[in-house]
Amino acid sequence: MSALGRLREVLGEISDLQRASAVLDWDQETFMPAGGVEDRANQLATLGRMAHERFTSDEVARLLDRAGSEVAGMAADSDEACLVSVTRRDFDQQVKVPAELVAAMARASARAKPVWQEARARSDWSVFAPAMEVAVDLSRQVAEALGYEHRPYDALISQQEPGLTAARVEALFAELRDAIVPLLREISAQAGRVDDSVLARPCDERLQLNFALELITRLGYDLERGRQDLSAHPFCTSFGPGDVRVTTRTGRTLGESCLFSSIHEAGHAMYDQGVPRSLDRTPLWDGASPGVHESQSRLWENLVGRGRPFWDWCFPLPGWTRTRSGGRATPCGPPTSAWTRTR
Amino acid sequence: MSALGRLREVLGEISDLQRASAVLDWDQETFMPAGGVEDRANQLATLGRMAHERFTSDEVARLLDRAGSEVAGMAADSDEACLVSVTRRDFDQQVKVPAELVAAMARASARAKPVWQEARARSDWSVFAPAMEVAVDLSRQVAEALGYEHRPYDALISQQEPGLTAARVEALFAELRDAIVPLLREISAQAGRVDDSVLARPCDERLQLNFALELITRLGYDLERGRQDLSAHPFCTSFGPGDVRVTTRTGRTLGESCLFSSIHEAGHAMYDQGVPRSLDRTPLWDGASPGVHESQSRLWENLVGRGRPFWDWCFPLPGWTRTRSGGRATPCGPPTSAWTRTR
Repeated sequence: MSALGRLREVLGEISDLQRASAVLDWDQETFMPAGGVEDRANQLATLGRMAHERFTSDEVARLLDRAGSEVAGMAADSDEACLVSVTRRDFDQQVKVPAELVAAMARASARAKPVWQEARARSDWSVFAPAMEVAVDLSRQVAEALGYEHRPYDALISQQEPGLTAARVEALFAELRDAIVPLLREISAQAGRVDDSVLARPCDERLQLNFALELITRLGYDLERGRQDLSAHPFCTSFGPGDVRVTTRTGRTLGESCLFSSIHEAGHAMYDQGVPRSLDRTPLWDGASPGVHESQSRLWENLVGRGRPFWDWCFPLPGWTRTRSGGRATPCGPPTSAWTRTR
Repeated sequence: MSALGRLREVLGEISDLQRASAVLDWDQETFMPAGGVEDRANQLATLGRMAHERFTSDEVARLLDRAGSEVAGMAADSDEACLVSVTRRDFDQQVKVPAELVAAMARASARAKPVWQEARARSDWSVFAPAMEVAVDLSRQVAEALGYEHRPYDALISQQEPGLTAARVEALFAELRDAIVPLLREISAQAGRVDDSVLARPCDERLQLNFALELITRLGYDLERGRQDLSAHPFCTSFGPGDVRVTTRTGRTLGESCLFSSIHEAGHAMYDQGVPRSLDRTPLWDGASPGVHESQSRLWENLVGRGRPFWDWCFPLPGWTRTRSGGRATPCGPPTSAWTRTR
């Protein structure tokens, strides 16, 4: 077997471990009983540590060197050459981070989740502050391990967005602020000129979920390879090309949270559902970077979902009509009878 | 650190991997979309292989030898001595089984699940037969790897019930049959003498789930450390002392399936919820054996659940009354308003 072939096998196993962690994370956010936190923290710490140890092993170092020679003659943007260069980049960073620190991060994150949920429910920062301190302390340790030229956060960003720095992010945000603040003022000045009271009308939780789920499947989210659940904060998570899940949350009104959250997460999900299977179980799967990922979610949420043409099309949703009695609650499944096909 | 202390650490990591596999299994049976099978098969194969490689490693062999000396002076039924002897027994068996075979078993099992569900829904054995052939073939390979004196199944049973043989099981079952068949005839002859029509009355699915969940929490199943979901075949699964879950299924009537399945699985679950935390993340956790486990589930299902005193107490369930309008479906949560406390 070529070194590249063997490297793909090892990366496939690491990907399996990371995806198992993602399933455990998803479960903690959606269905896990309150008592399971410490068990889950142990499991995520062990999975994180083992994935890290496997990835930063001498075997991967050797395979990367040999695979580098194998792809030397190939086009730089070929899947093979990209796989080696992206894996090399990740390896050179991760090999600097101690496995125990990776395990500690996973453990702290699992423990912090219910604390954050409680703080959020109570709207009380002081509840979460101690967990946040732990997270910041661990992140600083990661930054020190990775090394950086100017600021610790540069090291953390560069794990996901190579070359991006805190200073560059600040400059980008400043530019955006300069354009957005006047625009927002202009829009606010026109408040009341358009009747948007429909968005503020109270809406049954089940209808919000059914409508959001129905809508995102019409945008292209494939429920054969996905599902929608409830969580305190909406997210998208991928366990492979055949299982890309979204979560959402409901508000008092349809406009408040559920619908645009669902469209946003479906944007992430459709990106992952569209990645070719040939890249499966490699670091090339799951999108180019968080920034590119977010461009997809916001494309759907803002450019499509908040556009006039979209709402001309889907208000009311063509081919569907609201039935008199709401259907069964379906946070955990495909939509049932709250909306039914008219044909 | 003592060898026993280090052994506990390694066994803890292996336990974490096994529990992660259990979460992935649970998810596949309850919520996973149809498209996720191959991803899940990869993940379970990798987790199974890594847990097996870690357990059958040279490090565990060395630690077991040294820990054996450390506990030599302790009482044979002390936790420490039992941990070493049970781990030794498991190690001596598992070290004979190739890791690739363990991975193949996990992969085949994940692939077989949806096939079995389809075969069950269609009541068509021929749909499942090919997957069963794979399972039997792999099981034979495990038996050959383990070795046996008389029959392959002896090797498979002895993984879980040391010393038990197929011949002994057959003798036990023959004895039971001789006693049960005449008893069943005697009971059948009295059919119609007792009015059990209430059990055959159609019952709303949500009421079945709410009633079953309410009942098992009253028996002692702790929902702070558990939850009830739906699956094609009911089961109990444990991810640690803080997270022991049951599943159930509904039928057309209350008596048909849901209630006694739930009581049965709650019997397993209460056993696991009662295991001391001092044994957590070791092979001593999760019960003495499948046979002992089944004694607990059947104790609750049959000796308690099918007894006159139990039904005198819970028909109607004391302190509770049926409300006129059924509550929300709660396969995924605590019971809501279908039954409400009267005080």
